[in-house]
Amino acid sequence: MTKDSYLVGLIGAGIGPSLSPALHEREADRQGLRYLYRLIDIDVLGTGPEAVGDLVRAARDLGFDGLNITHPCKQLVIEHLDGLSPQAEALGAVNTVVLEDGRAVGHNTDVTGFAASFARGLPDAPLERVVQLGAGGAGAAVAHATLTLGAGRVTVVDALPERAAALAASLNRHFGDGRAAAAGPDRLAELLGHADGVVHATPTGMAAHPGLPFPAELLRPGLWVAEVVYRPLETELVRTARALGCATLDGGGMAVFQAVDAFRLFTGREPDSAAMLAHFAELAGAVPAPK
Amino acid sequence: MTKDSYLVGLIGAGIGPSLSPALHEREADRQGLRYLYRLIDIDVLGTGPEAVGDLVRAARDLGFDGLNITHPCKQLVIEHLDGLSPQAEALGAVNTVVLEDGRAVGHNTDVTGFAASFARGLPDAPLERVVQLGAGGAGAAVAHATLTLGAGRVTVVDALPERAAALAASLNRHFGDGRAAAAGPDRLAELLGHADGVVHATPTGMAAHPGLPFPAELLRPGLWVAEVVYRPLETELVRTARALGCATLDGGGMAVFQAVDAFRLFTGREPDSAAMLAHFAELAGAVPAPK
Repeated sequence: MTKDSYLVGLIGAGIGPSLSPALHEREADRQGLRYLYRLIDIDVLGTGPEAVGDLVRAARDLGFDGLNITHPCKQLVIEHLDGLSPQAEALGAVNTVVLEDGRAVGHNTDVTGFAASFARGLPDAPLERVVQLGAGGAGAAVAHATLTLGAGRVTVVDALPERAAALAASLNRHFGDGRAAAAGPDRLAELLGHADGVVHATPTGMAAHPGLPFPAELLRPGLWVAEVVYRPLETELVRTARALGCATLDGGGMAVFQAVDAFRLFTGREPDSAAMLAHFAELAGAVPAPK
Repeated sequence: MTKDSYLVGLIGAGIGPSLSPALHEREADRQGLRYLYRLIDIDVLGTGPEAVGDLVRAARDLGFDGLNITHPCKQLVIEHLDGLSPQAEALGAVNTVVLEDGRAVGHNTDVTGFAASFARGLPDAPLERVVQLGAGGAGAAVAHATLTLGAGRVTVVDALPERAAALAASLNRHFGDGRAAAAGPDRLAELLGHADGVVHATPTGMAAHPGLPFPAELLRPGLWVAEVVYRPLETELVRTARALGCATLDGGGMAVFQAVDAFRLFTGREPDSAAMLAHFAELAGAVPAPK
């Protein structure tokens, strides 16, 4: 059955600056669909993250077709859902809920979005030894994506050793023993010296947390660099790595492809990912990146 | 502040066949607005009419800009609102809720819609003595409208004498003593014999209740006839009265102008009422009425 209109929303805290409404709505316009994307900000509502269950049920009752879910509700929402995609179940986190026939099914397009962005932006990158910085929510999603793409071994580095260890253990359970390991920041120089590439998944480089996540001396031309931060689109890490001649992937691709994948789940239609990437670059005020 | 998109809905029971989504959305398209109209059917949700309060609050929290409210929630919704328009307050019934800045304010565009339809369709109709059949929810709204338009006296006839008496008493309180009276069906022939016109506000003539609400012999060419039923657009009453040469007003105008007035309240923009009337006629599958 083809629907003739779509109502979706984003539940999270402090989401006012989200680019998702613009990205989704313009793609829908391009496809001639009636489509509305609403922000449901728990900070604005003055409620806590535990309200996510009531908000999902209310959205289902009021005719929403789907929801994106972001911080701090990606884990909390799970107990309120009727089903999970394999990625969402493996990760224990949901960023997309499809509402259909009275059921709410959770997906994770952070995982599929990072995988799609990586496959597009670094198609020939060797994946035998990958180092990943950051074992938080974004880190868990991109580590799943990297291993799904066929990475031989991902070593997770985090300032909180128990968080890195927990993520590595979970990855090994899901992908098989030896595919993941944990390490402290003191081993970063040694690890990067032998790695094919590095995935950066901490907040460093965002406008509020400027700077490099590790010393520039640890970069070298043969090391690819994949960034998760996308505001600014060109972080200091991406800029420094590019200048050195590293193959790089900025965080915009993941941001766009998680929206591409969510749009496809909500509508059953194939989005024009090239147009969405161009729109994102325009919204992010990006200057064309040097080749 | 001009919004760039509008999300509205209709709360009621058994509202699947409503024409409101199509009427509102096409008018919004005409004006280049992003606009989505969702049906929130308490029968489909399996809940009772008392759920209307929770649904209004949920709609406010999820970013709805407004709601239409219909049977059986038009009275029940009032205790959940933050304010009322003069018509809604006088009538004790709300069919339109504007959600803005966290507040929910109730209006009644059944009243304003019937008044607008009457003024357009029967502009020269004498209003000294009006008989109205039906003292239910629709009857209360159109009696308010008729008196607002300047009717000298409205006599309300209903099969339930206490319902007619209660409406007449309420009208007299609001418009001044002597503006309204109640009567039983046994007095209908006498009343119509001296009336300028008759407003029909019972379900008779709907597809499920075919037929005439009173004997055709009580009609005469000098009597105008205003109908509230709009499915079918040409009821047996309207057809019979037209054939006799009565000036008539079908129920479509009220249905359209309540939507016109609601659209204006939701968006602050002036709808193209002629275009909405034409669209309604197309949706209702109406044949052009004889002049």
